[in-house]
Amino acid sequence: MLNSENPNPQLSSQYQSLDTPFLLVDKPLMLKNLARLRNKTEALGAELRPHFKTVRALEAVNHLLPQKTSAITVSTVKEAEALAGEGYTNIVYAVGISEGKLPRIEQLIVKGAEVRVLLDTVEQAEFVSHYCEQHNCAIPALIEVDCDGHRGGIHPDDPKLIEIANLLHQGAASFHGVLAHAGESYLCFDQESLAEAARNEVQMTLKAANNLRAAAIPCDIVSIGSTPTAHSYQDLTGITEVRAGVYGFFDLVMTGIGVCQLDDIAASVVTTVIGHNKEKGWLFIDAGWMALSADRGTASQPKDCGYGLVAKSNGQLVEAMQVIGVNQEHGIIAAVGSDGINFDDFPVGCRLHILPNHACATASMHQHYHVFDTQDNTYEIWNRIQGW
Amino acid sequence: MLNSENPNPQLSSQYQSLDTPFLLVDKPLMLKNLARLRNKTEALGAELRPHFKTVRALEAVNHLLPQKTSAITVSTVKEAEALAGEGYTNIVYAVGISEGKLPRIEQLIVKGAEVRVLLDTVEQAEFVSHYCEQHNCAIPALIEVDCDGHRGGIHPDDPKLIEIANLLHQGAASFHGVLAHAGESYLCFDQESLAEAARNEVQMTLKAANNLRAAAIPCDIVSIGSTPTAHSYQDLTGITEVRAGVYGFFDLVMTGIGVCQLDDIAASVVTTVIGHNKEKGWLFIDAGWMALSADRGTASQPKDCGYGLVAKSNGQLVEAMQVIGVNQEHGIIAAVGSDGINFDDFPVGCRLHILPNHACATASMHQHYHVFDTQDNTYEIWNRIQGW
Repeated sequence: MLNSENPNPQLSSQYQSLDTPFLLVDKPLMLKNLARLRNKTEALGAELRPHFKTVRALEAVNHLLPQKTSAITVSTVKEAEALAGEGYTNIVYAVGISEGKLPRIEQLIVKGAEVRVLLDTVEQAEFVSHYCEQHNCAIPALIEVDCDGHRGGIHPDDPKLIEIANLLHQGAASFHGVLAHAGESYLCFDQESLAEAARNEVQMTLKAANNLRAAAIPCDIVSIGSTPTAHSYQDLTGITEVRAGVYGFFDLVMTGIGVCQLDDIAASVVTTVIGHNKEKGWLFIDAGWMALSADRGTASQPKDCGYGLVAKSNGQLVEAMQVIGVNQEHGIIAAVGSDGINFDDFPVGCRLHILPNHACATASMHQHYHVFDTQDNTYEIWNRIQGW
Repeated sequence: MLNSENPNPQLSSQYQSLDTPFLLVDKPLMLKNLARLRNKTEALGAELRPHFKTVRALEAVNHLLPQKTSAITVSTVKEAEALAGEGYTNIVYAVGISEGKLPRIEQLIVKGAEVRVLLDTVEQAEFVSHYCEQHNCAIPALIEVDCDGHRGGIHPDDPKLIEIANLLHQGAASFHGVLAHAGESYLCFDQESLAEAARNEVQMTLKAANNLRAAAIPCDIVSIGSTPTAHSYQDLTGITEVRAGVYGFFDLVMTGIGVCQLDDIAASVVTTVIGHNKEKGWLFIDAGWMALSADRGTASQPKDCGYGLVAKSNGQLVEAMQVIGVNQEHGIIAAVGSDGINFDDFPVGCRLHILPNHACATASMHQHYHVFDTQDNTYEIWNRIQGW
């Protein structure tokens, strides 16, 4: 749990000097979360390919990756450009490629970064091959495998898998392997179903890889991942890499799924109480959806956390209190299922920390993160890469 | 309705050269929307005080305001600073003031801008007065009036109204008047209830102003507004100014409420089809919640538009199609309540325009707006002011 109360006077004064709302990152907690998944994944014999989409700050990359050639995933070309500009070379752009984005991908490849694109249709394989032919370059591509019907991808037994891979393998592009995302694991709420989702993701992706190899198509990369399954693998034989994004910050959705505790959440929004409505039992805060995001990811979970749970600035969770409503720059906090709020404990002007439903969404609302390290008493500003 | 198909070759080639997703503004449509409300408000004898929170781009201000002394509303100090930096001087900061923000407000006042703050508690009036005394400045303040129980504010008959106003009027700060926001008007879906919400907002705010005057406290500003009520006033006697924000862009929520038509929506997100799932009847697009926002403002309306309605790039609305799901950078479009999608009409690579649920939220996801004027064949980039 985030705790901004620190005996270090410089750090305390830094915290106090920041206007609310702002996004606070507890660095030691984040580093612990990052190490946890890297250690687990490497112990199972696979490489961790962190998803940059959550943090999207160059100041964080050396904490995400052991070296500049280490694997990373991005969700926008903008992220790939920023990383390549800093000398990071091993990038997967994990959103279905469209033809208009190929010139920017080519530029990165020319400059020395290996940026693999993702696709799941014959049309995409055709235009990527065609582009490579015309521009005399070999854009490396992965095929998206549908392991659980969650979103896109090709089923491992769909003959199109071989057709697409052949188009890439024999054409001017280059085929590097398969990638799956167990999106349905977000609907798991116990260890057993998480383990099953993880096993299924492994099996379905291996099946796709083996089907390709049986058709004499080399398949070097077998990439899987989602934060829920990444924490639940027991056997990664045959899998080359694991992707996950939100595991550095964690959030209430991940707490609900059961892959972290509230104490592990490393990002929160610091806000100020700007008013009381005693009749209704409401606190008003200066964090609305502009600061928290409108993400309601816990709405479908057993415990619905509204727009976020509430902690005091000493890190203590305020039981039962949650953000029940958001406008653009106003949030409303109420005590849900309890006797109500003792308003004397939350005077106008006091600061609270809101734990996010979905850290990716909340982080995306901020240009800067305010990163406090209460272990070595340092403060940093990280700048979020914005746009596409 | 947004139409990017234009005989002007330069404009067409500009549109094609932009990577998706991006936010497109149809400038003539926006100007028509802006003129509509300004004309209506001024015809009723009040001043329009546009809310800058929707557009938040300095390039747009001269379209919002007739001159630099014209009234404007902001929801962050950052907006006020940007406006004051350009010489705009008549600003209301319409979010409950907290003590920590007073030094920045004071700075703006010292530089010549009149930035009025908003409050609704005795504590706030005390710390504003105290600050003014200590710093020898007179920060002008408005009291928020609760006209419909929607959020914050003081009921017109609450004795605290007089108490707070007296604290400001007699103290070192300065009291300028009252402000109400008919937030409950967002729950109206017919002209009669809209007219009633508008009448109620006028009456309750006038009541507060008159109660103050009866207590010998001058109340120069009587400010009301919300986009739904602003379009529904019939009599503004006694009201000095009307606020509204989303009326320049409009959106699906406003269409659902009935204050605009789909054809009036001036902002949309341009996206590319990146995949098909023919079995499920889905199109994948490269606009997820990072481009569209996660706002589900139409979910509680009679017509739920998912995460947005779909138009072709010629502006033609595609009946029944809507964005039914969003991930960070993926959106899923399906045909809701119809026979499904003819995939040949939507090949991978084609562009679509997504009409937003809530233009304030969608605009907030973009650093830049791409502003096309198909009447005078010009293209501009507007830069959104970010942060707090």
